[in-house]
Amino acid sequence: MRIAKPIRELTPYTPGEQPQDSHVVKLNTNENPYPPSPSISGFLSSFDLDRLRKYPDPVFSQLRKRIADIFGTKPDMIFVGNGSDEILTLAARVFADDDEAIGAFDPSYSLYKTLAAIRNVPFVATSLPDDFGWTEPVVNHDSGAPVALFLLTNPNAPTSVRYPSEKVAAFAKSFPGVVLVDEAYADFADGNCMPLAVSPDNENIIVMRTLSKSFSLAGLRLGYCIGPSDLIEALYKAKDSYNVDALAQSVACAALDDLPWMAANTAKVRATRARITSELRRRGWDVPDSQTNFLFARPAGIPAADLFEALRSRHIYVRYFPGPRTGDRLRITIGTDKEMDELLAEIDKLA
Amino acid sequence: MRIAKPIRELTPYTPGEQPQDSHVVKLNTNENPYPPSPSISGFLSSFDLDRLRKYPDPVFSQLRKRIADIFGTKPDMIFVGNGSDEILTLAARVFADDDEAIGAFDPSYSLYKTLAAIRNVPFVATSLPDDFGWTEPVVNHDSGAPVALFLLTNPNAPTSVRYPSEKVAAFAKSFPGVVLVDEAYADFADGNCMPLAVSPDNENIIVMRTLSKSFSLAGLRLGYCIGPSDLIEALYKAKDSYNVDALAQSVACAALDDLPWMAANTAKVRATRARITSELRRRGWDVPDSQTNFLFARPAGIPAADLFEALRSRHIYVRYFPGPRTGDRLRITIGTDKEMDELLAEIDKLA
Repeated sequence: MRIAKPIRELTPYTPGEQPQDSHVVKLNTNENPYPPSPSISGFLSSFDLDRLRKYPDPVFSQLRKRIADIFGTKPDMIFVGNGSDEILTLAARVFADDDEAIGAFDPSYSLYKTLAAIRNVPFVATSLPDDFGWTEPVVNHDSGAPVALFLLTNPNAPTSVRYPSEKVAAFAKSFPGVVLVDEAYADFADGNCMPLAVSPDNENIIVMRTLSKSFSLAGLRLGYCIGPSDLIEALYKAKDSYNVDALAQSVACAALDDLPWMAANTAKVRATRARITSELRRRGWDVPDSQTNFLFARPAGIPAADLFEALRSRHIYVRYFPGPRTGDRLRITIGTDKEMDELLAEIDKLA
Repeated sequence: MRIAKPIRELTPYTPGEQPQDSHVVKLNTNENPYPPSPSISGFLSSFDLDRLRKYPDPVFSQLRKRIADIFGTKPDMIFVGNGSDEILTLAARVFADDDEAIGAFDPSYSLYKTLAAIRNVPFVATSLPDDFGWTEPVVNHDSGAPVALFLLTNPNAPTSVRYPSEKVAAFAKSFPGVVLVDEAYADFADGNCMPLAVSPDNENIIVMRTLSKSFSLAGLRLGYCIGPSDLIEALYKAKDSYNVDALAQSVACAALDDLPWMAANTAKVRATRARITSELRRRGWDVPDSQTNFLFARPAGIPAADLFEALRSRHIYVRYFPGPRTGDRLRITIGTDKEMDELLAEIDKLA
């Protein structure tokens, strides 16, 4: 008693390091190198404090209306969370029963496995092929527990590779459970699954977005998802009463009102991504075509773990995931051109 | 499949109504009638947007240090949530196993029962005596499942009555599970259980506070709790990576830096509470001595349900909880003196 068994035995998810030293090149947590829309500053300056005195809108009406307009869908197909992380935690509770399982690809967002452990249900990993492209998900646990929720990052992290929508759609059609497509990086990609989510034929696909990456608002914690209204309603039933605060709801509206700002920033990131992909390939690195704001690159001439440590000692932070499928690569966030040039210079010194 | 059974069968918790019409007297959700510290406005105006670009501090170091200083304790005994609601949801996951139960008094915060249902464990209600004072908690479910987590609002809602710390301490000593004391209203009371939480002898008491009520920040969603470091650490293991956004962390620090503002507001609320208690008693109402920012009062000459509806039609919102233990009373938030005079005037017209 006192601490539940799944929590006692849990190896918690480790978020990327947030160095307090400001003289660092921080390419380790997939943050956007460009600031959020300047309209948010004006908004914060004029924010009526009396709105903080009262509880926030528990169902984010204004924000949902804004999101519905952007995607040409209806507010009752939209749920909003305190970051996408909260939506994932709720989904584990809402879309999997105690005797069912949660599935995901491997490698993918390593939080998924932790979520299943906290939820105390089996986790079923489907190993991706060597090119990190699509493969058919395994939908049963060894124990016989069926996978009821498949968590699908698309484009995937840390691989940076995007699966075609048709593959996702075909899998969902054959799958009796819920497919949650985590599109955190979709604004950096050439296509996405949102048309599947808003389709009237959709029965079991939920597509999730975040303002953390393309809108440069990782500090705000704002994620949302779109899917069939019965599934969305189930998320509302299970959520905390007031899960998104009044400031976050309003700042999110301000950000979503300035789509050109986001588009300009993602265009810059994509341009830098293309340049650095070429630069690294020219140095003999293996770099899959990225559809995200990061690269998942295998260094040439130096083991990834060694390069990670060497860069870190030079105040350049990238992300390294030990393990058989990920340990020979680094996940490198696309920063400003200047930051990436510093990275390249250090790599050239070290290789 | 698709929607888990506990969620399909769930009757969700209903938060108090948030009327959009601004010409109302809103005494239904225990919000503070006075605004939050004006220092927050200055803070929002000068907020560096670049801080929203990056992920927030996942362990709220600055905020925890501030809270630790206030209560003379250590940061490793402090956890912070996206509102107290998030802490409650996490506690249900962390302090109760799948084959254990969650307990609380009845009547109390009706969310507790919903939390147990979402968690898919039995809920054990301990009926309070007629004066809503202390009684020994029932610590086993009929099924034999032991209560592993007892949720104790103190002062209690909706009753407004406070249990003595000694009773809480004695119960905790005899109880093998975790006692979570929800002190949302403690700043309006004559005493509290925080000394139990910070005591080096404490093994199983967690005391929770919120900025929603006394700090007038219901819109911000900021709760925290203090308890033994092993239990606090378990909450960290189970939480979402970045559960409190950068703005909320900073606004909370600004609010906690202005304790005199909070103290002045709670003093005003307490003075109004004393006056209205007398006024209602003079009219023959039964009004327990409130230790909160609301009254739980039985009207004279008109059934509570009828008065609730009549007041509502006159744009005065109070809270009514149907049911055998609560249905003969209204929960009335203490507003400004002017708002309370409007309430009294309407009551005199209706009685």
